[in-house]
Amino acid sequence: MTKTAGCCQGCLHYVFDYETPKTLVIPSIRVGFVFRFTQFLVVLYVVGYVCVVQKAYQETDSVLSTVTTKVKGFAFTNTSDADPRFWDVADYVVPPQGGDSFFVLTNMVVTPQQTQSRCPELPNPSTSCVDDCDCIEGYSDPRGNGILTGLCENYSTTVKTCEVISWCPLEIDTKLPEHALLAAAENFTVLIKNSITYPKFNVHRRNILPHINSSYLKRCEFNRTTDPDCPIFRLKHIVSEAGEEFQDMAVKGGILGIIIDWSCDLDWWARKCNPQYSFRRLDNKNPANNVAPGFNFRFAKYYKTPDGEETRTLIKAYGIRFDVVVHGTAGKFGIVPTVVNLGAALTFLSLVPVVADWVMLTCMGKRDLYKKHKITHLNEVADTETMSMGTSYGTQ
Amino acid sequence: MTKTAGCCQGCLHYVFDYETPKTLVIPSIRVGFVFRFTQFLVVLYVVGYVCVVQKAYQETDSVLSTVTTKVKGFAFTNTSDADPRFWDVADYVVPPQGGDSFFVLTNMVVTPQQTQSRCPELPNPSTSCVDDCDCIEGYSDPRGNGILTGLCENYSTTVKTCEVISWCPLEIDTKLPEHALLAAAENFTVLIKNSITYPKFNVHRRNILPHINSSYLKRCEFNRTTDPDCPIFRLKHIVSEAGEEFQDMAVKGGILGIIIDWSCDLDWWARKCNPQYSFRRLDNKNPANNVAPGFNFRFAKYYKTPDGEETRTLIKAYGIRFDVVVHGTAGKFGIVPTVVNLGAALTFLSLVPVVADWVMLTCMGKRDLYKKHKITHLNEVADTETMSMGTSYGTQ
Amino acid sequence: MTKTAGCCQGCLHYVFDYETPKTLVIPSIRVGFVFRFTQFLVVLYVVGYVCVVQKAYQETDSVLSTVTTKVKGFAFTNTSDADPRFWDVADYVVPPQGGDSFFVLTNMVVTPQQTQSRCPELPNPSTSCVDDCDCIEGYSDPRGNGILTGLCENYSTTVKTCEVISWCPLEIDTKLPEHALLAAAENFTVLIKNSITYPKFNVHRRNILPHINSSYLKRCEFNRTTDPDCPIFRLKHIVSEAGEEFQDMAVKGGILGIIIDWSCDLDWWARKCNPQYSFRRLDNKNPANNVAPGFNFRFAKYYKTPDGEETRTLIKAYGIRFDVVVHGTAGKFGIVPTVVNLGAALTFLSLVPVVADWVMLTCMGKRDLYKKHKITHLNEVADTETMSMGTSYGTQ
Repeated sequence: MTKTAGCCQGCLHYVFDYETPKTLVIPSIRVGFVFRFTQFLVVLYVVGYVCVVQKAYQETDSVLSTVTTKVKGFAFTNTSDADPRFWDVADYVVPPQGGDSFFVLTNMVVTPQQTQSRCPELPNPSTSCVDDCDCIEGYSDPRGNGILTGLCENYSTTVKTCEVISWCPLEIDTKLPEHALLAAAENFTVLIKNSITYPKFNVHRRNILPHINSSYLKRCEFNRTTDPDCPIFRLKHIVSEAGEEFQDMAVKGGILGIIIDWSCDLDWWARKCNPQYSFRRLDNKNPANNVAPGFNFRFAKYYKTPDGEETRTLIKAYGIRFDVVVHGTAGKFGIVPTVVNLGAALTFLSLVPVVADWVMLTCMGKRDLYKKHKITHLNEVADTETMSMGTSYGTQ
Repeated sequence: MTKTAGCCQGCLHYVFDYETPKTLVIPSIRVGFVFRFTQFLVVLYVVGYVCVVQKAYQETDSVLSTVTTKVKGFAFTNTSDADPRFWDVADYVVPPQGGDSFFVLTNMVVTPQQTQSRCPELPNPSTSCVDDCDCIEGYSDPRGNGILTGLCENYSTTVKTCEVISWCPLEIDTKLPEHALLAAAENFTVLIKNSITYPKFNVHRRNILPHINSSYLKRCEFNRTTDPDCPIFRLKHIVSEAGEEFQDMAVKGGILGIIIDWSCDLDWWARKCNPQYSFRRLDNKNPANNVAPGFNFRFAKYYKTPDGEETRTLIKAYGIRFDVVVHGTAGKFGIVPTVVNLGAALTFLSLVPVVADWVMLTCMGKRDLYKKHKITHLNEVADTETMSMGTSYGTQ
Repeated sequence: MTKTAGCCQGCLHYVFDYETPKTLVIPSIRVGFVFRFTQFLVVLYVVGYVCVVQKAYQETDSVLSTVTTKVKGFAFTNTSDADPRFWDVADYVVPPQGGDSFFVLTNMVVTPQQTQSRCPELPNPSTSCVDDCDCIEGYSDPRGNGILTGLCENYSTTVKTCEVISWCPLEIDTKLPEHALLAAAENFTVLIKNSITYPKFNVHRRNILPHINSSYLKRCEFNRTTDPDCPIFRLKHIVSEAGEEFQDMAVKGGILGIIIDWSCDLDWWARKCNPQYSFRRLDNKNPANNVAPGFNFRFAKYYKTPDGEETRTLIKAYGIRFDVVVHGTAGKFGIVPTVVNLGAALTFLSLVPVVADWVMLTCMGKRDLYKKHKITHLNEVADTETMSMGTSYGTQ
């Protein structure tokens, strides 16, 4: 045998010699039972909780969504304050584009025929005056409505207030109708079209499900029990599902979430991927600490008079903003999470012998026998060991 | 030696005595090969799949994005229906603000000079009447266009329909032009500026890449092969990349997704963080079950006549809504996911001996020899053990 | 004993016999110390880094958010270019609805009284002409402002340019005021109301915190040190917190992010879930490679003259778009991530003996003694084994 061959053989031994622990078989049913039972518990957790309940073997992805909305309905208002008026979609939906957030006007304070001019301020302690000296020219109170001209004018026969440069006449927004002007809005309907994508899994879905046909879509209306898949919603129904009263909400406005949950299980044995609708009021109704409760905003329509002067109609619009909130997570079997969770579980399985050993060596009657056969103390060198230990451990 | 010292030494022994399994070395190349080969497979999976393919050692974060869009282009329409008209951005982009969703008007039904008044309904089976008795005053059909006045009027010389209070004249939206009015919109361009942030990694990027200079930006146009980094897109090109025909889509409208994928690998050895553009139609074109196909909405321009009466021009706008959808995940080396995946892999490595043992003890020729040396049955007490076992296990 | 009983008993032995490794106890303080110290390091990592720093035992969820914004303030402009004018919210906030992105107009180029007509192009090298032959009828230059009529007209007494069909007079957007027109916008305030949900944990929060009362809300203004919870922000303060100068930004516009971080720790021992505000400019101010710096868009107000002709006022609006960006992750103790991380850590603990064995068998003085007791080579069959090995490994 040459030297190289010997070296090579040593190397082969190093690589391919298999080192395996010596084991001791204990034929005790009690220890065996503890061992198997603990194993069973770990397996139960892995199969039952991790796999079935949590589906931890799945990779996940978040939803990308597109929404279009289309409101239908019209109303006719005839109040003492204003002329009779017919309202259609172009009048009461702002913005008109039908994205994932749309506003339905239900109440308003209209101030028509405003022009850039001068008029006395609305009366309140800080604006009332006796003569021009009380009004500082050019000053503007952040809570006021314009820039002071320095004059004190008659607001009414009894009250004098400082004159301001502003859009006049000023808006008096305390005159909000107590009953919503467009009470009829509760019967408007909205069609919501929602397409979603899970880019990681290349899955596309839409909320008009494949089994629904066109004729059904033309007459259906969403109802959680009878028509859970119909994408047409009556506004009153949405609001009442959210636990609110439409007519209450219509007066001061609010924000209502139409929440579409697209949680999907995309494994071939599950194939569950349908939208779930829920509804929730998103602003706080009546908390103690609130500013500007409800929901309103101001916008204006601009006109020009025949002589070229710009006038506007200022509208303080109260209404319900509907926000379509799409969320969801899709899960599909993935190797990495499976391996990670299986690995973690196997680690716990490898802990089971530790438990069984402990039971065997402390609780069993024959523990000394087991100990004697399982554990070898380095006996042969006991004397020298103990001596050297004594030196190193000892405190004398 | 005092008692305390003895106790202390015992304690030290308890803490620092090292318990290690006794092992048996089997110099069998077959068993060794099975062992090493199984180990190799596990390492291959970890290095190859977990690290290289899945990059499971990375922490991830989701993108936050801001988008501005600016459309450019103008068109001139000259049809028999309407006056010749010049269109620019302020006319056809709704809303004008240039956010992440913008609408380009391509076709429309215009109903000018509407006023709050009375007119006969559009003729259809439910609105036609013979005399006033057929029209119930105050009733409003959800599919109609207004509130019935109770009168039956001549719609044309041959047809009588119920009169309604509404914005009159009523819109006749069946007269949609067959060829898109703004066919020229296909040559409009849009500049998309997109800034993104990965807040966890404090990374900011924008889609105008550092190597691009201003003069290139002024003349470039996106093209997947020649100009993949140019942020200026011709609308026709976007639509055709999505597999659609612009002129078809322009007639009834639709929704087109401009999808920007910002998947980033932020590790210093990768440093890959560029946007990838893709385009996809987001609404369904022609499924069997569809309502309101395409994309349209109604909006109105309000005017006042010299005598103060409000009139409006109602526009049913058909067009393409472009949604800029930004998504992406950034990954960067993280200790926790690395440890978790490494831990899982090591667990599988610790399973390898189980496989090798099984092969050794069942498939090898010398399995009895191996078994004899590896496994000790509690022999000394064999008799008593078996007896007690007999009692407990036996069924007689 | 019957045959069945014997088989059954064998089966019971198979299931319940407990196989445990034989171990050797080494009473060496050095090996023990290495063992315990390595164990300690692993435990330190798990407890210190994984649990305390990374909170890897938590499940996470992403935030769903709703935002309403309401700007307050007015301004008065009096420049030589235009009539004195008073501005309020309805004039300068576009769109008016108060969603999570709002635009405050600060500067503008106004082109009033545009009508559909003909006018000479703005002079530049490509539009100037000598006679009609230089102007091709029907041609439209993408960088021009309209469709050529084929005529060459006097733009001024010295310059002739091609006539175009367009909205005339043309906008001259080079006349942008150097100082922002609505410089006063810096003192406008915005109230931001933000409600968030973590759907997985069913947690709802709003940015008006419970301990804040209404009277405080009416007078407070956000300040990072004195009023960090006040949801009312002065625009100037927002911009300066983002490291920008309001008056600079107001001239050409820009995009400013109001970033609300709702990172929450929902475990009962933590209960930390408050918004953190930060501000950052989202567009690039002055990079070398920029197109259309700042932020602007064009919109128009449409009017009708008494004789029914449509005119419009075109506004190129420069201003600051405020984007409210809400992000955040909530974490709460979860069994699966806890088990996974604990499993990974335990795996590393199970590696500790490997390290200790290596130290014991290579670095210790008594390594041969340890080796002799720990490792048994299959001695009895050594001769035959080696021979057969020789045959299989050997190279002669």
